Amino acid sequence: MIKANDPYRKSWIEVTSHSDFPIQNIPFGICKTSDKTIYVGSRIGDYTINLNALHKLNYFNEISLDRDIFNKETLNDFLKLGKPIWRQVRDRIAEIFDSNNVMDESHKTVVLSKIDEVEMLMPVKVGDYTDFYSSRQHAYNIGCMFRDPNNALLPNWLHIPVGYHGRASSIILSGTNIYRPKGQKLPDDSDSPSFGPSKLLDFELEMAFITGQGKNLGETISTQEADDYIFGMCIFNDWSARDIQKWEYVPLGPFLGKSFASSISPWIVTLDALEPFRVAGEIQKPKVLPYLKFEGNKNIDINLEVLLGSYNFDPHLISKSNYKYMYWNMTQQLAHHTINGCNINAGDMMASGTISGNSPEAYGSMLELSWKGSKPIPMPDGSERKFLNDNDTLIMRAYCQSKI
Amino acid sequence: MIKANDPYRKSWIEVTSHSDFPIQNIPFGICKTSDKTIYVGSRIGDYTINLNALHKLNYFNEISLDRDIFNKETLNDFLKLGKPIWRQVRDRIAEIFDSNNVMDESHKTVVLSKIDEVEMLMPVKVGDYTDFYSSRQHAYNIGCMFRDPNNALLPNWLHIPVGYHGRASSIILSGTNIYRPKGQKLPDDSDSPSFGPSKLLDFELEMAFITGQGKNLGETISTQEADDYIFGMCIFNDWSARDIQKWEYVPLGPFLGKSFASSISPWIVTLDALEPFRVAGEIQKPKVLPYLKFEGNKNIDINLEVLLGSYNFDPHLISKSNYKYMYWNMTQQLAHHTINGCNINAGDMMASGTISGNSPEAYGSMLELSWKGSKPIPMPDGSERKFLNDNDTLIMRAYCQSKI
Repeated sequence: MIKANDPYRKSWIEVTSHSDFPIQNIPFGICKTSDKTIYVGSRIGDYTINLNALHKLNYFNEISLDRDIFNKETLNDFLKLGKPIWRQVRDRIAEIFDSNNVMDESHKTVVLSKIDEVEMLMPVKVGDYTDFYSSRQHAYNIGCMFRDPNNALLPNWLHIPVGYHGRASSIILSGTNIYRPKGQKLPDDSDSPSFGPSKLLDFELEMAFITGQGKNLGETISTQEADDYIFGMCIFNDWSARDIQKWEYVPLGPFLGKSFASSISPWIVTLDALEPFRVAGEIQKPKVLPYLKFEGNKNIDINLEVLLGSYNFDPHLISKSNYKYMYWNMTQQLAHHTINGCNINAGDMMASGTISGNSPEAYGSMLELSWKGSKPIPMPDGSERKFLNDNDTLIMRAYCQSKI
Repeated sequence: MIKANDPYRKSWIEVTSHSDFPIQNIPFGICKTSDKTIYVGSRIGDYTINLNALHKLNYFNEISLDRDIFNKETLNDFLKLGKPIWRQVRDRIAEIFDSNNVMDESHKTVVLSKIDEVEMLMPVKVGDYTDFYSSRQHAYNIGCMFRDPNNALLPNWLHIPVGYHGRASSIILSGTNIYRPKGQKLPDDSDSPSFGPSKLLDFELEMAFITGQGKNLGETISTQEADDYIFGMCIFNDWSARDIQKWEYVPLGPFLGKSFASSISPWIVTLDALEPFRVAGEIQKPKVLPYLKFEGNKNIDINLEVLLGSYNFDPHLISKSNYKYMYWNMTQQLAHHTINGCNINAGDMMASGTISGNSPEAYGSMLELSWKGSKPIPMPDGSERKFLNDNDTLIMRAYCQSKI
């Protein structure tokens, strides 16, 4: 039992019943206050917690931590410390803010900030970024649209958590405006490409996990060990330019159709906090090779929502999916990624691939929701969308629902 | 005229006539001496130059440089300074070691070390790594072997410098042993994969360039501007496990067949130093889109050699290629990479892809040299190679030849 996961615990910080930040969450992120102080923070209800200030006030004295571990502009140094320390820190935060404890008012002043007075920064300096392709429905949909519905899944898909390396430099914080990318596209009925802005700009609903420090080059991380190397998760929007991608991706995979931007949520929710929401995944047939076998429930029940808004209308729900729909789970992804001896570092990011459920309302991209543009999606103002328009706003939400 | 490129300059450091390190080279790297001092260094003849010591002795006082810019474990901070500073520093080094100048003996003692008393370290902390596929002969060979000799080049190849994101964490220094990777492969005449060590381990002869700090996300770097963002080049061996690669790479590109290791040379030769060796590339037909047009000679005449050695025989020449054979040049690669607004950072690495010349002796991989294993390569001890054996040593050499 992870202490911080006690479902009955309440905090002395007020938390509304529908908050994404009950005391059972305790995510980690990088905060910047109006006086330009930057610190590793957490959040309960509508308050950020300055972990650096807490540490300086000796709240973490029982844990082996460098004096400046929370006086940082990224989580990377904290990520290097490993799961036992991550867990001790989160458990201790739960204890400090437990309604059975109190905090000196003078401490509250330096430790707590109202969330609307804090700017969230990129939580991690991403080393390497990998994108998987692990939702069966998504891979099936793409195969149907671009290849053959009767052989929609390629021969390797049920044997390998297919993935590819992505661009780390263009991973940005949610809220940052993105530019519609320009590039080469092959117009229909033409043999030679044209140049211009992408006309098929899309989102991809994904979740990503962030790793701690791995092993040396040449060593592997087994499915049994994998969870120990996963710090936590964030929401991941793998913006995609379908027309650029389609022309460029053969034979070496997506490149400029993806690398113009990927947006992540500012808070990293620990894998520990997600443990109560573990569920079984789909039974994998054919049987996977031994190095991809795993024990226990390794999927997670995370409700996912995508909303699209624009000048004329408020954000409007266009997709309702769930992380539990993944065919390949994180332990398999990490075991596969390292089976060749590839090393991982603290701050690497591995995204799930588009998470599409089995019903059309649960598809995780415009490409699938509009079925390649053939089924335009009605909007509240009477307009339609096949792909994204300029000035559209895309919101992704992820939350777990306690059964208590 | 770049001062340091004066072809008639001689150094007061002795340099043999066939040295790769005449005073016209002045590469940059990270050196570690027996007393564990680590510094940014250069090299002339068989001596490394401690640039940090030079700087502390006020040799760079005319250049705007932080006091500790060479007191670093990577070149990254130096890379952020940009081409005018890189050039000033290299020009100044050429001047300091010019045979018309002298150096105090007490300075020599702290500045110079014999190369065999110095350990070379990874020169750069690689941020993002991209691998291109820019040798026409290589792309043609692969197309012939795995697809259709009549349509060997895919439709996009002559329009796009095709590339993909690679793994940065597993880029290691030349001389580091690598482990034969394990993974999934599809045996011939089977529908389901097996697991085990790669049986088709290969090298790929490549060159890579290292970037300075680019522009902001959403901005582009034109072919005209590209050279200003390229610091220099190193040799790059893109180790490849062909059997793993073949099974995994559809549809998202190479992944574990590459990410187990890539080896680079310790010295980065500046683009400035390579300017005298510029040559014209192949005329590109069909004409490229305007953003890929360029002016001047943008290929570089760099002689490349690959040698294979083992327990029973000394390293033996197996390929003789040249960087001038590239179809797409670096300015096109960088302009293409950023045309969608993708940002680049100081310390990013972009490799050429396998450099194969038009004749079979100039092919840059075992896959091509042995034509997929059908033409085994004879070795001096009477053995043959289709791919690499355990305990083989692979050496890549790159040099430019002055016409003087």
